[in-house]
Amino acid sequence: TSVSVGDDEEEDDILQKCKGFMSMPVTDVKLLRQKKGETSTRMEMLIMETQAAFCRALEEVDGGKFKVDRWERDEGGGGVSCVLQDGEVFEKAGVNVSVVFGHLTEEAAKQMRSRGKTLKGVDGKLPFRAMGVSSVIHPKNPHIPTVHFNYRYFEIEEADGSKQWWFGGGTDLTPVYIDQADIVHFHSTLKEACDKHHPKFYAKFKKWCDEYFFIRHRGESRGIGGIFFDDLDSPSQKEVFAFVKSCAETVVPCYLPIVRKHLNDTFTSQEKDWQQVRRGRYVEFNLVYDRGVKFGLATPGSRIESILMSLPLTARWEYMHEPPKGSREAQILEVLRNPKQWVS
Amino acid sequence: TSVSVGDDEEEDDILQKCKGFMSMPVTDVKLLRQKKGETSTRMEMLIMETQAAFCRALEEVDGGKFKVDRWERDEGGGGVSCVLQDGEVFEKAGVNVSVVFGHLTEEAAKQMRSRGKTLKGVDGKLPFRAMGVSSVIHPKNPHIPTVHFNYRYFEIEEADGSKQWWFGGGTDLTPVYIDQADIVHFHSTLKEACDKHHPKFYAKFKKWCDEYFFIRHRGESRGIGGIFFDDLDSPSQKEVFAFVKSCAETVVPCYLPIVRKHLNDTFTSQEKDWQQVRRGRYVEFNLVYDRGVKFGLATPGSRIESILMSLPLTARWEYMHEPPKGSREAQILEVLRNPKQWVS
Repeated sequence: TSVSVGDDEEEDDILQKCKGFMSMPVTDVKLLRQKKGETSTRMEMLIMETQAAFCRALEEVDGGKFKVDRWERDEGGGGVSCVLQDGEVFEKAGVNVSVVFGHLTEEAAKQMRSRGKTLKGVDGKLPFRAMGVSSVIHPKNPHIPTVHFNYRYFEIEEADGSKQWWFGGGTDLTPVYIDQADIVHFHSTLKEACDKHHPKFYAKFKKWCDEYFFIRHRGESRGIGGIFFDDLDSPSQKEVFAFVKSCAETVVPCYLPIVRKHLNDTFTSQEKDWQQVRRGRYVEFNLVYDRGVKFGLATPGSRIESILMSLPLTARWEYMHEPPKGSREAQILEVLRNPKQWVS
Repeated sequence: TSVSVGDDEEEDDILQKCKGFMSMPVTDVKLLRQKKGETSTRMEMLIMETQAAFCRALEEVDGGKFKVDRWERDEGGGGVSCVLQDGEVFEKAGVNVSVVFGHLTEEAAKQMRSRGKTLKGVDGKLPFRAMGVSSVIHPKNPHIPTVHFNYRYFEIEEADGSKQWWFGGGTDLTPVYIDQADIVHFHSTLKEACDKHHPKFYAKFKKWCDEYFFIRHRGESRGIGGIFFDDLDSPSQKEVFAFVKSCAETVVPCYLPIVRKHLNDTFTSQEKDWQQVRRGRYVEFNLVYDRGVKFGLATPGSRIESILMSLPLTARWEYMHEPPKGSREAQILEVLRNPKQWVS
């Protein structure tokens, strides 16, 4: 009864927003209201909003409904997994939010940062808080590409009480066939979001994406890239959050126009087979190289079904598959073997 | 012209045997004749024989023909890969032989032994010779199990000229449904081969198999086991080779009676789906845990198509798949979660 009018409005805002989410946030709404100015609260609201906006947009185009699973983590925190499987348009669409906390070993904390910074804990243990939204969408039609995005935030408290924090994330596209206009639209949308924050972000994070999503044993990229970044911790929490927010807000405009454009494209069984072979490569990348998957599979108490939600419903491995020269299949392989600049 | 009659006979024997192989051995036949008493020669002949016997038996039951690829390794050696894809009975059947040699780093040599023995090389380099036969057979009918076997031999020469050698291998079965009689036949055949050489081999190698083919993140075994061993280097080269030969000779009698028994079993689309889900788990094990695959993917110059030949033609990942209680699907899951003794 004694809160100011301004506070009331902002509290109402949080409650109001929660009503539009796929499920209540992981953190108690009371706590979010109390800590409404903090980065961890703003990020949790952002990932819940991103999940809801993306799921609603996909539901609209598919006609199906996401199955929503709330889960708790014994060691602290939990998540909300949304999956639409075997829909009209999507073979498997997963949009997962997790907000977890607890204590990390110094070794685990080191592994969480790609730069491998050493962090000092009390008795080798570091209190941490990690949250993120991640999604992989595998459509049925081979002319609609697979998309993946992930935006995440980490906080670690060192022995001296100082807080380390950083953001990571990215969005990338994995088409089965090259459609130049789709790819230019996708990269341009990401570039525009990057350019609002730093003139060098797009070029840097585009390159990082090409390097990260590389299937070494095949000598090819998983897809045609996008952006990828990790360990982003400067100039300030506020500014990096603003950048991540801009990126998260692009997931619908990056992807949905491409889905709608190809919704009614016809396809042959050969095209479907090629999609299945590419899905096999997607599985190879995710199980052999993806840092998030490796970390998840090796971490006790992680929710396997949410981690492996990224795998397609179906995939195929043909021995010695090599598309004929000059074919559309050979064309995309050429691009995957030699990543291109799509926008300048 | 001056060789004894006995030698002539044995030489003829090598040539004669080669005629029945899927392709000529990797090592020049002249060289094999010269070194006919050596373990590496006897092992190369054994793996070629095993490949041929298994391929012919599968061809007979399928009606299709194996595609035979000979390949060379730039760094030394090569192999013969036989694949039958999309056959009448088999969705994907691969039987691969490789004989490779060259120099290993001390670190790589250490990794090749599960016990991690330190080996001393000249300037940190160790001449090695490795050979083996490996196979994975994925049938179409969900009532015919997948089988895998691998028998291999390593030689490493240390700086002081001393030779280290060891054998490894095993055969294991991955059914989609439990057929008690099949499993008892499979394990009994392996036990019989083991018992001829050591009363403790079967129990020890059965346990090792259960431990090795365990999908940690799922808390379940890949299949119902079999035998698995590594680093076998005593009491003598001759005796271990004899054991490995007995094992290799069981691959046809272990598997073919099971294939024939279920050849005409009818199946539902639900049963086919469950097979596809189990194939997904097979892929998870092979890409995340299998030592051979990990070593192969990380080794420059290895033949990716032969390494990943073990992956099924098709696989499926359903979110939160859990078979109904009391179903035949739940029955095998129970067994995979709690490995059993099948023969005593």
